Amino acid sequence: MRPEPPRDAETVAEVGEFRLIHRVTAGRAQPPTTLLGPGDDAAVVAVPDGRVVASTDVLVEGVHFRLDWSSPEQVGRKAAAVNLADIVAMGALPSALLVGFACPPDTPASLVEGVMTGLWAEAAVAGAGVVGGDMVSSPTLVISITALGDMNGLEPVTRSGALVGDVVAVCGKLGWAAAGLAVLGRGFRSPVGIVAAQRTPEPPYPAGPQAAEAGATAMVDVSDGLLADLGHIAKASGVAIDIRTELLPVHPRLLDVASALGADARHWTLTGGEDHALAATFPGPKTVPEDWQTIGTVRAGSGVTVDGRVYEKPPGWEHWRT
Amino acid sequence: MRPEPPRDAETVAEVGEFRLIHRVTAGRAQPPTTLLGPGDDAAVVAVPDGRVVASTDVLVEGVHFRLDWSSPEQVGRKAAAVNLADIVAMGALPSALLVGFACPPDTPASLVEGVMTGLWAEAAVAGAGVVGGDMVSSPTLVISITALGDMNGLEPVTRSGALVGDVVAVCGKLGWAAAGLAVLGRGFRSPVGIVAAQRTPEPPYPAGPQAAEAGATAMVDVSDGLLADLGHIAKASGVAIDIRTELLPVHPRLLDVASALGADARHWTLTGGEDHALAATFPGPKTVPEDWQTIGTVRAGSGVTVDGRVYEKPPGWEHWRT
Repeated sequence: MRPEPPRDAETVAEVGEFRLIHRVTAGRAQPPTTLLGPGDDAAVVAVPDGRVVASTDVLVEGVHFRLDWSSPEQVGRKAAAVNLADIVAMGALPSALLVGFACPPDTPASLVEGVMTGLWAEAAVAGAGVVGGDMVSSPTLVISITALGDMNGLEPVTRSGALVGDVVAVCGKLGWAAAGLAVLGRGFRSPVGIVAAQRTPEPPYPAGPQAAEAGATAMVDVSDGLLADLGHIAKASGVAIDIRTELLPVHPRLLDVASALGADARHWTLTGGEDHALAATFPGPKTVPEDWQTIGTVRAGSGVTVDGRVYEKPPGWEHWRT
Repeated sequence: MRPEPPRDAETVAEVGEFRLIHRVTAGRAQPPTTLLGPGDDAAVVAVPDGRVVASTDVLVEGVHFRLDWSSPEQVGRKAAAVNLADIVAMGALPSALLVGFACPPDTPASLVEGVMTGLWAEAAVAGAGVVGGDMVSSPTLVISITALGDMNGLEPVTRSGALVGDVVAVCGKLGWAAAGLAVLGRGFRSPVGIVAAQRTPEPPYPAGPQAAEAGATAMVDVSDGLLADLGHIAKASGVAIDIRTELLPVHPRLLDVASALGADARHWTLTGGEDHALAATFPGPKTVPEDWQTIGTVRAGSGVTVDGRVYEKPPGWEHWRT
């Protein structure tokens, strides 16, 4: 499944754990919040607020990424993005990543270096550094990332604060990764922008703290699909959420791709995960920040509806159930 | 390699990700530092000091643990202990664990619950809670833990602060896990205390913050072996370390086991990893806390010697090199 490495490619076993860690950490620029970076028993990160926000996501080769579809750098960017999105979805400022890297001994060292380069690059976009981690031998390539952030004086925006009468809004791409997956699944490599969205999500990092500052009552990052993730807010908050399709942005490029593949662009938008857009509820239309798009309302009741009706197709997916 | 589960054992695929997460988190007691526990995009943990200490370790079935040698609870305890030891080795107070859990869909749910029970139990010993994580499908069982801690007003004790003239001291078990591995490797299941040390290390958690308060100049947890880990201090600090074997505690029970197996108890003590004792340097004999045992001195030069001589056997191990 993986592209063949050059025959003379050095393996991680040949390079060794300590030298490889040195290679992927030496000379990297750390943000000012990194008080002690890689190389000791643990890292030390400044959290001036006194409350650290922390989230872990695990990516498994063949389950969450494929190295014939994505470069190591793209895998690294994605691994970082899915975690950093969780941090900003609380309204926090990302500050650090820790990386658990498990791979077979014959893995090319260049693959590890590529993933780490992607992690560093995505962390930098979000204002974070890679501050520590672990590299071990494993039959399966598994990348486990923990992201840390600082609340910066704001209150964490949980899933449980949505109130009847709030408006629902989103920021970031919706359905692009699902469309990209459909394209790749048919063996195509273009349109490039759509395929890139599947390989490397682009969470709207600044929009999370922005929403917290604007008074968002609940927020999630869209990882399982818009309806599924809004369902998490509805359930945790004890409310119903209704989406109006006339407000829902379905990007013209998704319509083009869907038309070419005989697929449904609105379905991708409503149910596609992995774009890591943000979805939040706000106390009223005037509190919705400029970059956000209002798509519905919070009502009394339970569950998520589309134009007042239950959506007929599966609203998302769970691991081990696919 | 793994014991057969009962035929009617529910698998993780049957239980499903969300229900399984609920099962392993519901009703657990969190420490007061857990401001927001599992169930949202990210956890929120109080770090009153404003500096969070963070460390990640990854454990792979067949590489770091065997389920025919250890129960799921023991694996969970070990996974937590190796990480919490890294936190106290900085002088910090452990506050939280995040758990990345990757396993095949046909894994018995009871196995996951057992590991999580072990994690919660060991976290409680150290004063921490399990605040979040991720559960995913993977061909290989991989447990990735990130531990977080608070500096509690003290300065982090790194590997690089040892000064010529300092004394070297240790706290906790040395060589027990190596002895336990030797016992298990010969197909024995006793002595129970020795075997238990391999299955579940017992890091001396309070000794880390205690050493920091006493003015320790450098500290590590002994994960690779005493000589190897003191080598990390020597290298990072630009000093030499000499161990005096007449000061080195070799426990009588290790001598008994070594005698029975025809092995060398001192070798286990000097090179055995996985006990997660603490080793530190202190400015002078009077600053060494009561629970610590002085075993040597910091000198000008480089490297680690035993009674003034280079130790002849391999001083530790690296991943991918075994």
